[in-house]
Amino acid sequence: MTEKLPEAIDLSHHLSRVSRARTTSPLKGLQKYFGKEGMISLAGGLPHPDYFPFSTISAEALPYDSYVSAMSNQSRGSFSWLWSFLSGGKKETVPITIPKYPANSGDISLSTALQYSMAAGIPQLQRIMKEFTDKVYKPAYSNYATIVHTGNTDGWVKASMTLCNPGEGVLVSEWTYPSALSTIIPLGLKPVPVAMDYQGMKSDSLRIVLSSWDETTCGMPRPHVMYTVPIGQNPTGATMEAVRKKEIYDICVEYDIIIVEDDPYYFLQEGPYDLPALRNKKPFKVDEDDELFISHLAPSYLKFDYQGRVIRLDTFSKTIAPGCRMGWFTCNPLFAERFERQAETTTQAPCGFSQSIVTSLLLNWRYEGYLRWLKGLRVQYTERRNFFIDCLAEEFHLQRTLDTQGVWAGCEVYHASQKHRAEKQATNEKRAEIGNAVFSFVPPTSGMFVWLKLQLDGHPFFNTVGYKELEMKLWTEIAEAGVLFGPGFMFSSNQRPDEGGSGHFRISFSNAEFGDMKKAVSIFATVLEKFFEHV
Amino acid sequence: MTEKLPEAIDLSHHLSRVSRARTTSPLKGLQKYFGKEGMISLAGGLPHPDYFPFSTISAEALPYDSYVSAMSNQSRGSFSWLWSFLSGGKKETVPITIPKYPANSGDISLSTALQYSMAAGIPQLQRIMKEFTDKVYKPAYSNYATIVHTGNTDGWVKASMTLCNPGEGVLVSEWTYPSALSTIIPLGLKPVPVAMDYQGMKSDSLRIVLSSWDETTCGMPRPHVMYTVPIGQNPTGATMEAVRKKEIYDICVEYDIIIVEDDPYYFLQEGPYDLPALRNKKPFKVDEDDELFISHLAPSYLKFDYQGRVIRLDTFSKTIAPGCRMGWFTCNPLFAERFERQAETTTQAPCGFSQSIVTSLLLNWRYEGYLRWLKGLRVQYTERRNFFIDCLAEEFHLQRTLDTQGVWAGCEVYHASQKHRAEKQATNEKRAEIGNAVFSFVPPTSGMFVWLKLQLDGHPFFNTVGYKELEMKLWTEIAEAGVLFGPGFMFSSNQRPDEGGSGHFRISFSNAEFGDMKKAVSIFATVLEKFFEHV
Repeated sequence: MTEKLPEAIDLSHHLSRVSRARTTSPLKGLQKYFGKEGMISLAGGLPHPDYFPFSTISAEALPYDSYVSAMSNQSRGSFSWLWSFLSGGKKETVPITIPKYPANSGDISLSTALQYSMAAGIPQLQRIMKEFTDKVYKPAYSNYATIVHTGNTDGWVKASMTLCNPGEGVLVSEWTYPSALSTIIPLGLKPVPVAMDYQGMKSDSLRIVLSSWDETTCGMPRPHVMYTVPIGQNPTGATMEAVRKKEIYDICVEYDIIIVEDDPYYFLQEGPYDLPALRNKKPFKVDEDDELFISHLAPSYLKFDYQGRVIRLDTFSKTIAPGCRMGWFTCNPLFAERFERQAETTTQAPCGFSQSIVTSLLLNWRYEGYLRWLKGLRVQYTERRNFFIDCLAEEFHLQRTLDTQGVWAGCEVYHASQKHRAEKQATNEKRAEIGNAVFSFVPPTSGMFVWLKLQLDGHPFFNTVGYKELEMKLWTEIAEAGVLFGPGFMFSSNQRPDEGGSGHFRISFSNAEFGDMKKAVSIFATVLEKFFEHV
Repeated sequence: MTEKLPEAIDLSHHLSRVSRARTTSPLKGLQKYFGKEGMISLAGGLPHPDYFPFSTISAEALPYDSYVSAMSNQSRGSFSWLWSFLSGGKKETVPITIPKYPANSGDISLSTALQYSMAAGIPQLQRIMKEFTDKVYKPAYSNYATIVHTGNTDGWVKASMTLCNPGEGVLVSEWTYPSALSTIIPLGLKPVPVAMDYQGMKSDSLRIVLSSWDETTCGMPRPHVMYTVPIGQNPTGATMEAVRKKEIYDICVEYDIIIVEDDPYYFLQEGPYDLPALRNKKPFKVDEDDELFISHLAPSYLKFDYQGRVIRLDTFSKTIAPGCRMGWFTCNPLFAERFERQAETTTQAPCGFSQSIVTSLLLNWRYEGYLRWLKGLRVQYTERRNFFIDCLAEEFHLQRTLDTQGVWAGCEVYHASQKHRAEKQATNEKRAEIGNAVFSFVPPTSGMFVWLKLQLDGHPFFNTVGYKELEMKLWTEIAEAGVLFGPGFMFSSNQRPDEGGSGHFRISFSNAEFGDMKKAVSIFATVLEKFFEHV
């Protein structure tokens, strides 16, 4: 990571007409005066900071070690989530105060954070983003840039407007984050779906799409931009490991494609799920040191990016809070400059309260503390993932198979069949066959979602109304019974019927209380039983 | 204001292709389930609020009556700004605390404010915006909508993308806020300048532009959108009164034009400037009651908007702080719905820290308190405006004329000529003639800016290098001497040479310390003297 991007690599042809038409700063050439020490500026329309009606902003922050950082593998049933907090939790909070005027030069203050400021973010935050990116993602070249945005949704808007002209296509996974499509479709961009497996986008499918591209048949030029959520993919929960990423990166080099890596779930890499019985036999996981922790995480595309064709989107939404509306781009300097100009005339800098509070927290915690916090979060979401799947295991017969074909080829798939009421009360002697499975899933190793594939072909109306209608019918019956899932149709990036017979639900284990998750799975089981009996 | 917008008025043809292509919410039709009491939601990818690393956020806020609310007309020379603070200032602050979880239902809490939330803003803030708009701007129809945005720059991006297709023109004042143009030009939109006078855009000029529009000659269809900063216009400081607004509104009805009213300086309506000698003779201004205060302000276009063709942009940038990155649209329900969908896939809701802190402050102050704060701000900026012009009066001979023609026809114009060093030391007996004026200006009645028209035709190089180069030469010499003004060329919305021989500076009196303003004017005078002597 000591080498600069070779100057021979020129990615400027990727810039859209809109991005090219963006001004450079109107003060270009005059800027030497604007930064100068001791200048009296009567140039900007800035209010005087005396008139900001706050003398201080403070926060009581949690300590970075509020949550245990290594998994206990002991099954503690429904109380597991309590344990991890109680055993590692500390009650004291860390006081953070941001005064209106700085006591020492370089301190964070409201007089600058709440003023109009650089679209690139306050300098203290810039340094944090850079240090973090350096140490965690280890980009393949040294002169990459980091620049704030107001959350990954904003980052994706800026990236798509910077790279794409109306009428172009964008490579996406066949199942994808619907908001990412809602962002680009009105801009005249068309999603180009690529088939997935349990690691997300398939490299061989990507190659087929690109190599067989025919501009006339497809009605648009070959796409030059890819949108991907590579870790804990939304909605499927798929996580892409290093080998696949390298394969895809190389194809992107070959076909001159820019990769937009939207990676909100990076630190929720929960690892493999084991059923409780198995989990109890595993040794207690030892807390890893920072380098080991990082090396065990699936890498970012940045690590392979020797040509500067990756735009990584990081966000504080999942690691601090969504309301921060703050995150950052990591990308080549050419794109970063365009993003900065774009921010100046759209969002401007992220909110000054957010910048100053989050930056103060991270300065207090320091890099090591923030990493410790992220380890704790990972354990929390792992407990939640385990708990939710444990609930499924309690309500359904789960049988595991190693799939050898289809989208889940090469991984262990859980097939759920119904326990009849009688059976539930009995001692689980009779097991349903896989052939009777009502849904299947691969336990996610990252993220917030379990993606259920519904085996709707067992439903009596399957041949008459089809899987799409049945998916919505089931969704509605579950909703009527008081539980909301994400309906699968929302996440489809193509209109072609695929995987005939499968409906889907995206189920989030990130937010509900544990008792509610348990209750929800029980309601789901009851509704499902009635649903399939409905003749 | 009791009547709803007549249903016969359909403005949907103003929506751009991009805006029409925006989805309605993907959950439309399912929404009845999402709002339902007692539902267990496993649908959204929301982090659990326990993991937001803040247990409380607090602020020490200034009381709403921190600043005096009525002008003293006593000239107190260079110490005037101190007086207004000391005589009315209070040292105590108001404590504001936002807990993670609400003590009572309906309280503001971090668990909701820092969560993903409605793009329309938190409900408490929605109520405040509505009440404020109702009472202050008094829209002409009852079913208008208010919806948050992340500052007026964002508001203008959203409005222009909602209304305009590439290749269209947007009506603007001949001098205008450069960032507003930097926003739309990359989108393929073209500014269509309309001539101005001391009230801003001229209605007769607007009518000429529209009535004489020829699509072939102009190379684009007749514009259907206007961008305007009607109060304390940026950069000219012009303020448009009710009669002119009504005239322009009626023309917009006639030609089917949507008015985007960007109005950040609304509460900085400082009133007429008087030289100190005159000011001292006026009676001390009595504090107005709220209704009187509002009635003395130039009205918003909303007040005349019986057809729902005004999109008003309000911001907290000048009244609370720019770093809030928060403001709101007031407009018809059709456009508001489009803005909400647009926010969902771009900025999302404004920052949760900002929403919760600003809303808590405004709930604490209440409507009456916030109005009292705004009265105080007005006095502060009036003191600043007065002080800056007083400084000009000290450094230059100022002569007033009532202009009968040109852009300033109908108002009192100040012409500044140089005091020679010897004269300064003498007792001001000899006055320079207006013919020797080096710059002229109309003291602004609102806003943050004084707009100087430079009489560059007196410069020996005028005929050889022209006014544009001379403007930059003078700007650079002033910058070299340590003072930054806004160079006039930045604010021009057309490329045609206009007002031959006039350079311009925009000078902001809003931010600098009073001593620095005085020093800056003195430096300006010195540089100007040398500049014109340069042979």
